[in-house]
Amino acid sequence: MTQQLARVSLPDIQRPVAGQIDQVVDELRRIIAASFPIIAEVNEHLLRMKGKLFRPTLLLLSGQAAGAAEPRSVTLAAIVELIHLATLVHDDSVDHSPLRRGMPTINGRFSHQVAVIMGDYLYSRAIVELVRLEDLAPLRVFARVTNEMTVGEMRQLEAHDKLTYGEAQYDALIEAKTASLLSAACEVGALRGAPAHRDALARFGHALGMAFQITDDLLDYTQPEAVTGKPSGLDLKEHAALERMGPGERRRVADLMATAEPADEQVADVIRLVETAGGLEYARRNALEHAQRAEAELETLPPSPARDALRDSITYAVERRS
Amino acid sequence: MTQQLARVSLPDIQRPVAGQIDQVVDELRRIIAASFPIIAEVNEHLLRMKGKLFRPTLLLLSGQAAGAAEPRSVTLAAIVELIHLATLVHDDSVDHSPLRRGMPTINGRFSHQVAVIMGDYLYSRAIVELVRLEDLAPLRVFARVTNEMTVGEMRQLEAHDKLTYGEAQYDALIEAKTASLLSAACEVGALRGAPAHRDALARFGHALGMAFQITDDLLDYTQPEAVTGKPSGLDLKEHAALERMGPGERRRVADLMATAEPADEQVADVIRLVETAGGLEYARRNALEHAQRAEAELETLPPSPARDALRDSITYAVERRS
Repeated sequence: MTQQLARVSLPDIQRPVAGQIDQVVDELRRIIAASFPIIAEVNEHLLRMKGKLFRPTLLLLSGQAAGAAEPRSVTLAAIVELIHLATLVHDDSVDHSPLRRGMPTINGRFSHQVAVIMGDYLYSRAIVELVRLEDLAPLRVFARVTNEMTVGEMRQLEAHDKLTYGEAQYDALIEAKTASLLSAACEVGALRGAPAHRDALARFGHALGMAFQITDDLLDYTQPEAVTGKPSGLDLKEHAALERMGPGERRRVADLMATAEPADEQVADVIRLVETAGGLEYARRNALEHAQRAEAELETLPPSPARDALRDSITYAVERRS
Repeated sequence: MTQQLARVSLPDIQRPVAGQIDQVVDELRRIIAASFPIIAEVNEHLLRMKGKLFRPTLLLLSGQAAGAAEPRSVTLAAIVELIHLATLVHDDSVDHSPLRRGMPTINGRFSHQVAVIMGDYLYSRAIVELVRLEDLAPLRVFARVTNEMTVGEMRQLEAHDKLTYGEAQYDALIEAKTASLLSAACEVGALRGAPAHRDALARFGHALGMAFQITDDLLDYTQPEAVTGKPSGLDLKEHAALERMGPGERRRVADLMATAEPADEQVADVIRLVETAGGLEYARRNALEHAQRAEAELETLPPSPARDALRDSITYAVERRS
């Protein structure tokens, strides 16, 4: 993999599984269906705000790439999106976020109470559906990863002293928060494939997830609107940069972290400091290392359009702008 | 069953399974163990506030009463308590309750955010542990009932117009909220028994749960400290009474429901109205009907100390004072 990557769109990546991707949302709708009015209403809202189906895409491509004949793949793909959705509903409630993907969150549009109950509703529907498949293997993977994500959420909540938050802690956080579910998506898609392929795809998903999240955190700095948001202070790039700063610069970063609602200029100043100290470059290099690890795992799979699409998903993960 | 019931204590009921009940808390501790500091701290708090283990007791007694050799019974008993605990943690967060069983709730002692994440942590640990048992049967029961409880929570949250809340809605609410998990405890305990015994115990648990919750709601009225709390307005006794009231009396009830923080005298007035109109008597009779149904289900089981203890648990459910 070269540093210079071509731009890839998600529909390109989805091409080998396009027919199935189209069915995922209908399947999701079936699984979460409820006759109780408020639940039905929240479901409609959630289906309107649905994302790009990146996790279902990975699950379906992994199945094809592992040569795993998996008649339940559309259902499993809907379930991984459902687990992701349940997590988002509770995350937004915990963070008091009013918007996601430009739409009101469940806590924003309904209430905090509805968000807590709906997250539980969605997650328990996912388990009911997994049990209905009468196979412990996908249940085992998804149960483990869901628990891991709750520990990740707690890590994020408890990261009080942000300036002492080191690289190992950042890695543990994004592993639990993001890489675990991407890895689970790939692993579950390949469950009926050869164990060596399944394990390679699980490792691929993990490395992809790390690269994906580091890139996501970089977007806070590189998006045009970045200067309007306060850096989280939990990011690799800031800590890599802090190690290279003098005491005066470190104090300017610490001041920003201690300011509840910093002015745009203060945020822009710290972003410049972090960039000058090489923080962004360090994070980009780190994301590319994970991307290379992900690509290496794919080398062990037989050539196929699905494998090519998974390779493109690495480019997508590290090069996307939103 | 006569109207005159003897007082029964929970330790009496637990006698046939006393050895196992002692192990349930250790097993619960093992299942929820975490190395992440804040999770470990919340776990300790939860283990201190643990309840009377009524659901584990029912699970263990049902196993014995059905003659079901169940080597996993202590683990399953810990899991039913864990699911109950996860539900309480989210319920308290949704209701903003500061206290439970005289101790601070997780949202009260820590924060709302910690409560949301911990509920998810506990519930996903329960699923992980169930998967570890490598048996879909208990998973199927617990997954279904957990989803049912979330719908019950939503029913409770959405019961806006309390004066039009009828008996069928009240039944659906307490069924989802309470009877479903008591039924699941009995059913799971008897999973390895004869199907006829298992089904009878599931129906027993359901009827017991209905009687238990109606009695619980009656305690709001009959406890000495009852007049300090506002009636929920969702209770059977109030609606039974409303049907027997004149327009003036109905208005006094409606006024109370519309008052955010009513004075003690206003609450006491409505409690008297409901009692005079026969609301309490109606609810008591209803609880006893469910109790009789529960007792009839036990008749189909072979005689045993465990069956006797389950019969005593009916008395406990409808006669308890706290």
